[in-house]
Amino acid sequence: MTRQRTKGEETKKRLVMAALDAFHAQGYRATGIAQLVEGSGFPRGSLYFHFPQGKEEVATAAIALATDGIGASIDAAFGASPDPAGAFRRVAEGLAAELEASGYLRGCPVTTVALEVGDDVPDLRAACAQSYADWTARIARHLAASGFPPARAERLATFALSAIEGALVLARTRRSRAPLDDVVAELEPIFSAGGRT
Amino acid sequence: MTRQRTKGEETKKRLVMAALDAFHAQGYRATGIAQLVEGSGFPRGSLYFHFPQGKEEVATAAIALATDGIGASIDAAFGASPDPAGAFRRVAEGLAAELEASGYLRGCPVTTVALEVGDDVPDLRAACAQSYADWTARIARHLAASGFPPARAERLATFALSAIEGALVLARTRRSRAPLDDVVAELEPIFSAGGRT
Repeated sequence: MTRQRTKGEETKKRLVMAALDAFHAQGYRATGIAQLVEGSGFPRGSLYFHFPQGKEEVATAAIALATDGIGASIDAAFGASPDPAGAFRRVAEGLAAELEASGYLRGCPVTTVALEVGDDVPDLRAACAQSYADWTARIARHLAASGFPPARAERLATFALSAIEGALVLARTRRSRAPLDDVVAELEPIFSAGGRT
Repeated sequence: MTRQRTKGEETKKRLVMAALDAFHAQGYRATGIAQLVEGSGFPRGSLYFHFPQGKEEVATAAIALATDGIGASIDAAFGASPDPAGAFRRVAEGLAAELEASGYLRGCPVTTVALEVGDDVPDLRAACAQSYADWTARIARHLAASGFPPARAERLATFALSAIEGALVLARTRRSRAPLDDVVAELEPIFSAGGRT
């Protein structure tokens, strides 16, 4: 019984990971159910068994997976850096590395999907909003822990996240990591240990 | 002869404006040729007469139109503001107003398209890159004119553009202009007349 449930969960996880991969590279609209099935290596029935609502449900789970994964990277970057400026540098390094390794295809999976979706896929839209809310809250917590007043920490978290997300879009489009490096350089004086105001 | 050329140009412009509208709200991939034709009010032949390459060619022209339009807004904002901080506030106000008026559908048309396109539509990808390059260069010129050293002005332009573009994505997704307001508030000390370092 337990083994069966575990196997089911493993299948579900692999379906979601394959879906995240597809959405990451080409977005939500351009990805068909057939491609999701093919990418996962499982039969079509398996996808509908785990996700009766089909594509939107798989995509919502994929965005949740990306939220947790990138959230964990944010925590790790803050854990490994002496100040928030170093943490943002580390986060940007990770994003730049993935972007370059993928031939400038893989930016932020959430942003790629977020810009395509509207009121016709409300659950997916809510999942994207939840991603940004989760990352902002994590960053704000780390900023507050390193001495920024909580209200300012919240605003600065939105600011830093916006700048990095925007730079990632520019970098992907220009096929160059330079925008990410520019943003990290300008975040430095605001977030370095000596720069707190 | 002249009147005919003028009429042809007018038709072409209306086709491109209708296309920009469609791409703006729902992206490149989800927009079909049939919808472009319908949105323009012209017969299908008219679209292929002016854009023999079809959808990618119309989209490339639409991105160029958006580049000029938003570029002009950037210039106007700097022209009307006493310092760069005021110009960014004015740009963000315009974006927030359009976002709210459209029910949180219309963000940046270039970013929406840029994240969907890859190496399969190279002209369109290049047009998106050109948009960001154009806006960055304009902002850098204005920053240099207001006293920032040229090399720093270039980097700061990328930084401010990234932050505003990123905030627009967050604002669209969260259905709230708050991220734009947060970013403008944090850009203020960097770009106000007194904040130059």
